[in-house]
Amino acid sequence: MSNSVEGVEKYRAISPAEFFYKYREIAGFSNPVRALYQTVRELYENALDATDAHGILPDVKISIKRVDEIQEYYRVTVEDNGIGLPPDVVPNAFGKVLFSSKYVLKQTRGMYGLGVKMAVLYGQMTTGRPVEVITSKQGFKRIYYFKLRIDVNKNEPVILERGTWRKSRDWHGTIVSITLEGDWARAKPKIMEYLSRSVVVTPYANIIFLTPENEIIYYPRAISILPRPPVEVKPHPFGVDLEMMKQLKELSASDTVKDLLIKNFQSVGESTATEVLNRAGVDPSKPAGSLGEDELLRIVNAIKGFENLRPPSAKAISPLGREIIVTGLSRMFKPEFVEAVTRRPQVYHGHPFIVEAGVAYGGGTPQSEMDKPVILRYANKIPLLYDEGSDVTTFVIKEDINWANYSIAFPAPLVVLVHVCSTKIPFKGVGKESIADVPEIRREIRLALMEVLRRLKIYLVRKAREEEVKRRVVLLAKYIPEIA
Amino acid sequence: MSNSVEGVEKYRAISPAEFFYKYREIAGFSNPVRALYQTVRELYENALDATDAHGILPDVKISIKRVDEIQEYYRVTVEDNGIGLPPDVVPNAFGKVLFSSKYVLKQTRGMYGLGVKMAVLYGQMTTGRPVEVITSKQGFKRIYYFKLRIDVNKNEPVILERGTWRKSRDWHGTIVSITLEGDWARAKPKIMEYLSRSVVVTPYANIIFLTPENEIIYYPRAISILPRPPVEVKPHPFGVDLEMMKQLKELSASDTVKDLLIKNFQSVGESTATEVLNRAGVDPSKPAGSLGEDELLRIVNAIKGFENLRPPSAKAISPLGREIIVTGLSRMFKPEFVEAVTRRPQVYHGHPFIVEAGVAYGGGTPQSEMDKPVILRYANKIPLLYDEGSDVTTFVIKEDINWANYSIAFPAPLVVLVHVCSTKIPFKGVGKESIADVPEIRREIRLALMEVLRRLKIYLVRKAREEEVKRRVVLLAKYIPEIA
Ligand SMILES: Nc1ncnc2c1ncn2[C@@H]1O[C@H](COP(=O)(O)OP(=O)(O)O)[C@@H](O)[C@H]1O
Ligand SMILES: Nc1ncnc2c1ncn2[C@@H]1O[C@H](COP(=O)(O)OP(=O)(O)O)[C@@H](O)[C@H]1O
Ligand SMILES: [Mg+2]
Ligand SMILES: [Mg+2]
Ligand SMILES: [Mg+2]
Repeated sequence: MSNSVEGVEKYRAISPAEFFYKYREIAGFSNPVRALYQTVRELYENALDATDAHGILPDVKISIKRVDEIQEYYRVTVEDNGIGLPPDVVPNAFGKVLFSSKYVLKQTRGMYGLGVKMAVLYGQMTTGRPVEVITSKQGFKRIYYFKLRIDVNKNEPVILERGTWRKSRDWHGTIVSITLEGDWARAKPKIMEYLSRSVVVTPYANIIFLTPENEIIYYPRAISILPRPPVEVKPHPFGVDLEMMKQLKELSASDTVKDLLIKNFQSVGESTATEVLNRAGVDPSKPAGSLGEDELLRIVNAIKGFENLRPPSAKAISPLGREIIVTGLSRMFKPEFVEAVTRRPQVYHGHPFIVEAGVAYGGGTPQSEMDKPVILRYANKIPLLYDEGSDVTTFVIKEDINWANYSIAFPAPLVVLVHVCSTKIPFKGVGKESIADVPEIRREIRLALMEVLRRLKIYLVRKAREEEVKRRVVLLAKYIPEIA
Repeated sequence: MSNSVEGVEKYRAISPAEFFYKYREIAGFSNPVRALYQTVRELYENALDATDAHGILPDVKISIKRVDEIQEYYRVTVEDNGIGLPPDVVPNAFGKVLFSSKYVLKQTRGMYGLGVKMAVLYGQMTTGRPVEVITSKQGFKRIYYFKLRIDVNKNEPVILERGTWRKSRDWHGTIVSITLEGDWARAKPKIMEYLSRSVVVTPYANIIFLTPENEIIYYPRAISILPRPPVEVKPHPFGVDLEMMKQLKELSASDTVKDLLIKNFQSVGESTATEVLNRAGVDPSKPAGSLGEDELLRIVNAIKGFENLRPPSAKAISPLGREIIVTGLSRMFKPEFVEAVTRRPQVYHGHPFIVEAGVAYGGGTPQSEMDKPVILRYANKIPLLYDEGSDVTTFVIKEDINWANYSIAFPAPLVVLVHVCSTKIPFKGVGKESIADVPEIRREIRLALMEVLRRLKIYLVRKAREEEVKRRVVLLAKYIPEIA
């Protein structure tokens, strides 16, 4: 034991690529079932981010092909008609973990700069096959082709092949192929469920899915209206911290501190900036570069304590709207009653967010469990399938709603849809499967559900009354046969 | 819209420090309550890793002091008598995200190389104060002092101050202080619960906790036996993948491929290596450096399909053992019945693991909820407090056990303890709060619980019988007064 007290440890740093390769389960790549599902998801979500968020009606083709007779190797290909990528960023976008265009304040499905790289890593560790990318942007004269793998130790792309050719028509978009070990038989139901839930909230997309059995599953576009695309915004002061202020100080060293505040934050103009700096005891005309750490800290605290700020702008978020939810639920379940609501923007920790809720009742709506309705959860337009038990929506449904108030007793033919959208979804993990219990969000989900449930109740009460009337008429008819 | 179709994106890569600063919630730093709790936890777990895993009986002092009259700034200090750190690694250990001594195959509480850096980051973004470290290793003549912060963009430590002095006595250990914005009033119950649950499984530790109100909470050492410390092992071939083989190929380029297998894996000797290579169709005497990717892949697949491998060694894991669990539960609850069991080692994905379970019943044991016992979850000797609803242990308890079989109806005065230990715990996130539903682990938890519950049942049945006898004696006494 005296030997071990010596404590000779082996210290080392690993790259983010090695980190996420080592702990791939936390990003949803825990086994061949989940990995196949997650790969489809990551490619598909990137395809949608490259289209609807940029005003393009999405046309997406997904194909999964088995490519080895002995091993269960699958080639997953997703093609979109999106904005494409400039050729110089392709290697990093697909081969460098934590490289992204989505570290901006704007609603997107991706947010971690991780998704496609996890799929590439999983592919190369199970099958050794590189990722292949074909892409072109609108207006570009050429199409570009890359074949690459990730150097895990360095977190760098290794380009194995590249090519380019002239475009004959103005195609723009991206085609990505990844080959990985998967378990199609067991992943199939999850992938199917994911897609069918996804099209509920993207009825403006054309989706074609070609399965390994050569089945073609087609979700045709149902409406041609896109939700308003989100617009990038500046950070809201409510989300400020000392680290952010330090970075801004470096970037705006030659500005006055007042200008630093006005230029870099939304909701901050002349008078707010002056007032904040007064409270912080900092001269507004002082050059930002000369601010000491204690001054920066006083500014941060003054901002946090400020009551009169305009709430964050909602331009950066893009809800679905009532029509899309109602259309989606109707198409999916053919219910006898359907309703949806979009709440007004709210804020948590400086991030704007909007909650939407929908209900479908009766008709083709599936029967629920004994203690709650069927729940369809969405975040920034992506369906969440796993970890329902630890999601804030489940907490609201199980703890915050008095179902009897709405004339509902379970099991019931009732589906409830909840969509949270924000510049930053507080996911509990990088696998993007459940939303944390943030009080501000929980409250909005409750209010949104209460709103749609009130309307459902009116419908149910009226229906019960009409049935009662009918029953009476029948009863009456029995006793007064001459009327019948 | 044609404007947005252009899709001018801002691409960038962020460092792992910026990534985890940005998404700190996923590591448990979502607000001042959680951050204070998580900081104590990370420092405390590092202190224990530096002691018990190296054969040292832990002496740990935790103190939390409020250091600002207006803002809720707290200075958290944790002191241990552990192995200390060499001065040249201190800056990276505390100032570089993903730097660790625990990326080895051996049971430890840490595994992500992230914990203390998250606390340092949170401290500097909320209060601007750097981390302070004082450390010395056994046998070293000097003590070293560092004050440092993290450069978030570069993911590098920035040393603000350093010093060193001669030791007067042979002290070894580490003292770490971090100042952060916290919410003591609301974090207190969680921190208290964490510590009291922790000492249940480390009765061999001496823990002193000084609160901001200057209360002293003392958990004295209850036994002086340490569990056998874990020993580092080589990877088991069942966990192999192509990426790992490629890295080994680079490292052992001049060895023959047979030697590569024998040297780098446990459970692989002459005959296994030869047999694997035969099946893969690779010449055993071929130099590893000359292997092609297809050959590496064939070797990986041959290993995975190999049936006769010895299971992974359990030397690398260190269970608590029956005595420690029984002592811990008895001390905590003074129950009328207590029992515990340590199962034999098992494997998932190439990782050895052991499940232990304990029950405490009656006496001072608290009353449970309506549908399940009070659950104490542990992983590699750390208590898990959050996300109970998505933990594999909860699934077993709610779905896999027929409680009526064990004469138990809820609510009951019943506490159930489950400890999973492994060279790699399949946590669902880097916050280390819940264990994923891995079938092999789920099965072992069920079997462990069934074992202790069977013994509880025997006790309960005997007790019921004795009470029945007593009741009869009393009844008898009533009717035959001359005996009384
Ligand atoms: N189909 C696509 N079309 C256009 N750009 C894409 C596409 N797929 C990936 N990208 C680019 O690659 C980046 C990295 O993707 P990914 O690793 O999935 O992370 P994230 O989606 O979180 O940003 C994206 O931010 C985007 O800029
Ligand atoms: N109290 C301590 N005593 C000795 N070494 C420590 C201590 N705290 C941290 N370290 C070292 O710093 C490294 C990084 O710690 P941390 O960031 O918490 O990650 P992890 O614990 O997952 O390795 C540890 O691996 C360990 O080598
Ligand atoms: Mg993505
Ligand atoms: Mg402004
Ligand atoms: Mg640690």
